[in-house]
Amino acid sequence: MYAKLIEKLKNYGTVITEHVGDYSLSVKGQSFLSDKFIHDRDLHWLRQSHIVIAEVSTPSLGVGYEIATAISWRIPVITLYKEGEQTVSAMISGSDGCRHFPYKSIPDAHRIIENEFTKMGLEVSNES
Amino acid sequence: MYAKLIEKLKNYGTVITEHVGDYSLSVKGQSFLSDKFIHDRDLHWLRQSHIVIAEVSTPSLGVGYEIATAISWRIPVITLYKEGEQTVSAMISGSDGCRHFPYKSIPDAHRIIENEFTKMGLEVSNES
Repeated sequence: MYAKLIEKLKNYGTVITEHVGDYSLSVKGQSFLSDKFIHDRDLHWLRQSHIVIAEVSTPSLGVGYEIATAISWRIPVITLYKEGEQTVSAMISGSDGCRHFPYKSIPDAHRIIENEFTKMGLEVSNES
Repeated sequence: MYAKLIEKLKNYGTVITEHVGDYSLSVKGQSFLSDKFIHDRDLHWLRQSHIVIAEVSTPSLGVGYEIATAISWRIPVITLYKEGEQTVSAMISGSDGCRHFPYKSIPDAHRIIENEFTKMGLEVSNES
């Protein structure tokens, strides 16, 4: 599912955290890296981002940390969550720094991304 | 367990999020409040804090969000996690903004709190 969202986002530019959709580069696949290395690298990636799209259906300290950091750096944040599943933390759903959307299916999530990117003047640059 | 950590912290001053140890005021008990109300109230509490003690054994978007916000506001953060359980996100364990400690038992967690507070010059003000 993450891989399918990433495919969509790649139409608009570079997806810095593409490894999230790739198991070999996922958290478990990165166990040889130090925590400090991962933290500093991820914040370095965040600092270069024009926009953050966060899938927030699953509780995660790291995702919450990155969202709040993006907000404090004034990076626009879109949060997507699967409709009807677990409630998302009020710190995310109640934050003025996130545009927060439920989705039912991948095409649904793709439509949300298209709409939000259009509003922000971001256009498809590499149609795939 | 949260209640026992809060009892210890109350020796040092006011615990603003004391409701975390009280089910009726926990997230599920607050379902009548809007997400924006909870978010804004929690950040208002955070803004008044001299120190944040976060129990991070359980993944949580809200806790990650509050830790990163505390760091960006230069509030000292101590994170405690149960030794040997789930791995804590590298965004927390690898962050220079958190002092990160494993604990085995409540007395163990109490000792960590005492040590850290002593280093920071925070003294017991209401011995219970």
